[in-house]
Amino acid sequence: MTKIRRPDGSEDTMVPDRRLTPRVQEDDKWRTALTCIEPNKILVRGYPLDEIIGRLTFGEAIYLLLMGEVPSPAIGSLMEAILVSFIDHGATPPSTLAARNTATTGAPLRACVAAGVLGFGRFHGGDIESCMQFLDTGLEMVRRGSSYKDAATTIVQKCLASDEQIPGFGHRFHTRDPRAARLFQMALELEVEGGHIQMIRAVELAVNDLPDGMRVPVNIDGAIAAVCGDIGIPPETANALFIISRVPGITAHAQEERKREHPMRQIDPKDHIYDGPGQRRLPDKRR
Amino acid sequence: MTKIRRPDGSEDTMVPDRRLTPRVQEDDKWRTALTCIEPNKILVRGYPLDEIIGRLTFGEAIYLLLMGEVPSPAIGSLMEAILVSFIDHGATPPSTLAARNTATTGAPLRACVAAGVLGFGRFHGGDIESCMQFLDTGLEMVRRGSSYKDAATTIVQKCLASDEQIPGFGHRFHTRDPRAARLFQMALELEVEGGHIQMIRAVELAVNDLPDGMRVPVNIDGAIAAVCGDIGIPPETANALFIISRVPGITAHAQEERKREHPMRQIDPKDHIYDGPGQRRLPDKRR
Amino acid sequence: MTKIRRPDGSEDTMVPDRRLTPRVQEDDKWRTALTCIEPNKILVRGYPLDEIIGRLTFGEAIYLLLMGEVPSPAIGSLMEAILVSFIDHGATPPSTLAARNTATTGAPLRACVAAGVLGFGRFHGGDIESCMQFLDTGLEMVRRGSSYKDAATTIVQKCLASDEQIPGFGHRFHTRDPRAARLFQMALELEVEGGHIQMIRAVELAVNDLPDGMRVPVNIDGAIAAVCGDIGIPPETANALFIISRVPGITAHAQEERKREHPMRQIDPKDHIYDGPGQRRLPDKRR
Amino acid sequence: MTKIRRPDGSEDTMVPDRRLTPRVQEDDKWRTALTCIEPNKILVRGYPLDEIIGRLTFGEAIYLLLMGEVPSPAIGSLMEAILVSFIDHGATPPSTLAARNTATTGAPLRACVAAGVLGFGRFHGGDIESCMQFLDTGLEMVRRGSSYKDAATTIVQKCLASDEQIPGFGHRFHTRDPRAARLFQMALELEVEGGHIQMIRAVELAVNDLPDGMRVPVNIDGAIAAVCGDIGIPPETANALFIISRVPGITAHAQEERKREHPMRQIDPKDHIYDGPGQRRLPDKRR
Repeated sequence: MTKIRRPDGSEDTMVPDRRLTPRVQEDDKWRTALTCIEPNKILVRGYPLDEIIGRLTFGEAIYLLLMGEVPSPAIGSLMEAILVSFIDHGATPPSTLAARNTATTGAPLRACVAAGVLGFGRFHGGDIESCMQFLDTGLEMVRRGSSYKDAATTIVQKCLASDEQIPGFGHRFHTRDPRAARLFQMALELEVEGGHIQMIRAVELAVNDLPDGMRVPVNIDGAIAAVCGDIGIPPETANALFIISRVPGITAHAQEERKREHPMRQIDPKDHIYDGPGQRRLPDKRR
Repeated sequence: MTKIRRPDGSEDTMVPDRRLTPRVQEDDKWRTALTCIEPNKILVRGYPLDEIIGRLTFGEAIYLLLMGEVPSPAIGSLMEAILVSFIDHGATPPSTLAARNTATTGAPLRACVAAGVLGFGRFHGGDIESCMQFLDTGLEMVRRGSSYKDAATTIVQKCLASDEQIPGFGHRFHTRDPRAARLFQMALELEVEGGHIQMIRAVELAVNDLPDGMRVPVNIDGAIAAVCGDIGIPPETANALFIISRVPGITAHAQEERKREHPMRQIDPKDHIYDGPGQRRLPDKRR
Repeated sequence: MTKIRRPDGSEDTMVPDRRLTPRVQEDDKWRTALTCIEPNKILVRGYPLDEIIGRLTFGEAIYLLLMGEVPSPAIGSLMEAILVSFIDHGATPPSTLAARNTATTGAPLRACVAAGVLGFGRFHGGDIESCMQFLDTGLEMVRRGSSYKDAATTIVQKCLASDEQIPGFGHRFHTRDPRAARLFQMALELEVEGGHIQMIRAVELAVNDLPDGMRVPVNIDGAIAAVCGDIGIPPETANALFIISRVPGITAHAQEERKREHPMRQIDPKDHIYDGPGQRRLPDKRR
Repeated sequence: MTKIRRPDGSEDTMVPDRRLTPRVQEDDKWRTALTCIEPNKILVRGYPLDEIIGRLTFGEAIYLLLMGEVPSPAIGSLMEAILVSFIDHGATPPSTLAARNTATTGAPLRACVAAGVLGFGRFHGGDIESCMQFLDTGLEMVRRGSSYKDAATTIVQKCLASDEQIPGFGHRFHTRDPRAARLFQMALELEVEGGHIQMIRAVELAVNDLPDGMRVPVNIDGAIAAVCGDIGIPPETANALFIISRVPGITAHAQEERKREHPMRQIDPKDHIYDGPGQRRLPDKRR
């Protein structure tokens, strides 16, 4: 709901852009609270950018910009983890293929990135908001006295009854999403595990108790939803993290397409192999 | 140049997609060296993603994905710095306005991000490749015996003679770009300062010696170009860093537009004020 | 609902992409019914393209491609009219501003067009589907015995009661949308006026009977919704016509921006004037 | 070159956005000559939109908007023909695949269209400007006394010597592009055939006289370039016609993808068949 001022000065709370009323002129200046630009000075949420450079990581600066404050060390670590977890998933996601198809036409990198970003539709990276709402529904029951187990069973049954997929679960490829497990482990170690993560664990148990006996993994959407919920990142911002995280991957694929392949080729997603480095471990001092 | 195989098996090196020859069928599988996806396993340039999560920052993971190797600590710090330096520049860049104009129509976040990313045209964020080539021209002279001073004077004169702007210099708003100075300081402290940074300093002196006596700053494009040159990041990858860096800013503006303003408004870029936090300093332990 | 085949051969009807089940391989080829491409032959919905060229107009070919058949003369004329009606609306729509902001950065035309197209959000050109559903609700009542007047009053009241805007009515600028009136006039002359147009006229009367006495016009979305309903164009295709129609306008603005203005300018939507031809009439033989 | 006004009032002709000079404030209003919007009145290049609706076709209105005047009947017919000729080319162009890959993620139609439009890169639909320049080079020689045959031979040899493809010739699929032949036939019948079409015919003969004896067709880019040249449409506008023409095709494919296929599928461009209508002829009265 937005306040709209009529030409005669009277106010009204109405759904924005009621085309039944003529458009009102904006008399006031509009406002931004993100970045202040003055000659030779750039403040990001109040902090001079040249002070942030070299003292905050990119992940921490992203949190500052989106949330308005510098993150605590624990939350900062989880931000890095979330952003790293979704950075790429190979050449087969339709968003990556859209980017490669754009690259093969000779379009510049930004066009390839834009095409790839547009591929985050309802079925691809959009599960996070519905998962957060799903978990919140269960948490509401817990707040009113239910056990996690009963709440989880209830919300799972509700999904199945309305023939909906359970958001945050299952994967077209992995039976145990390695990224999800790692995020949960970090949340535990950093002591930020809270209600959302507890709820999603309960849902995982409830799902695996279903009669058809399928072992269904929490997927990366679900893990990010739960972790974001417990560190206070709202759903719309969690959605933004997907896009921010995947842009480097889209970029890398577009550049590889341009560098290794000839233009205007027919890209068959099933017809490729990996020829990068074999599995290797981080140097000791990194582990 | 690409090798193309004719239907009769003969090979030819020609400009790709010579439409004079019929299109050849691809018999081989195509290849990607970026990310290996197998059930329950994701390797990014060979490193298991669940091992990277929590051990590499987002900035380091971006370097790994684009360059193929884990960065050294010094280069990792500069990566973070480069990515933070371009994260946002307020509401007035045309790319940010394109994103806000898309947001005001109610379009989803990914559409706003795509529209914003498309605004990195020739005149906006595209100076980096030309600046790197400009510096390389000067460095070639130095390698053949010229002094930095003479080489700088030469390449500056060449630009002015052909009525071209000197890439990496000047800014529509700042007379001393705070981001550039900070990046150079870090490069010095981390002991990665090399030929490119030396060259751009020489160019700065040469430009400021010009008769019209203008003090012209190295801008952020120039600083990133010089630093990337000295840490071995090629021009096309440096270009990618602009996009990756600015996506969080575009995202934040699109979300603020949707949250604070009513839809379908006329966005006047000159008619806004900053109402975010006043200037403040990072906590002591961060400095 | 889609049929999915499990790996063991058993079938299931489920919501597509149930991530609870592993992704199944596609054994069959997928199909397109739009255009057949063979060496030296292009069939658009079965018609050789070189036969269509010069015999169908662009508007008629668009109808053929989207609807599958060559339109009758009456429907063809309305297609042209619909497509012409939305071709441009000046420099102030946010979509057009997104395109101009992209053009000012030096981005190529296709990027400007893409940025502009992304601006057709919920509040901008998206009213057509909701208007068609709105009219269909009223028509359902008419089919069950209600008068147009009573049905219109009912659906209008339902909107107002739930504080929703009445789709297809009102405009931020026009109190009598000249395009809507002309479309209705043509529908009448071409004898295709049917239930949808009747319904929207009834709604217009019902709206104007409301106590606050506002004269609220049917807008172009409403006119297109009603006309499309009466000539059998489904809502999703009607939505497509908006995009197809406005692309020339977006193109023209992007090109004018690049041609007349210097790059990287701050575009103030309120700060422009029209300096094109004064009002003029088509040549006699055209009227 | 643009005129820039310095803050002190002095003028300078310089390459736009010389970042060596501080940005100048715009004191004057900016101008558009395309569409005049006043309450209840919309003028497109001076013509009231409600007068154009029903009297100009979409193709003619596109010409009016882009070129500023109502086209003659002959030019109007060729506009329709040009726009129809490029309306679709099946499911395999990378731009169409980018659109389908976006559609399969559940993204809305406008995102699919944007992704598709971005695929008009250098190698896909971008040949038209280079072809027009190529033909103009030959026509310049003819104006200075050369025969068409000699001029054609010269410009062909120049291409081959610099290992460049001859713009407007060859196709990855067709050995005789049916669309090109039809456009030329129409130009002849409508008596607009001029120097550009003569030149491209001469080039076709010169190419087919080359030692390797390949029969190489004029392709659709070349035909559109030549026809546009002879009816006075400048290169940048000819480029725009590609985009405007193909948007309906991209739209149709995105909608078919969403309607017939399940989401998040792996789209193999080689693995599809056409199941639309078999070849058929337009009704007699249409031919």
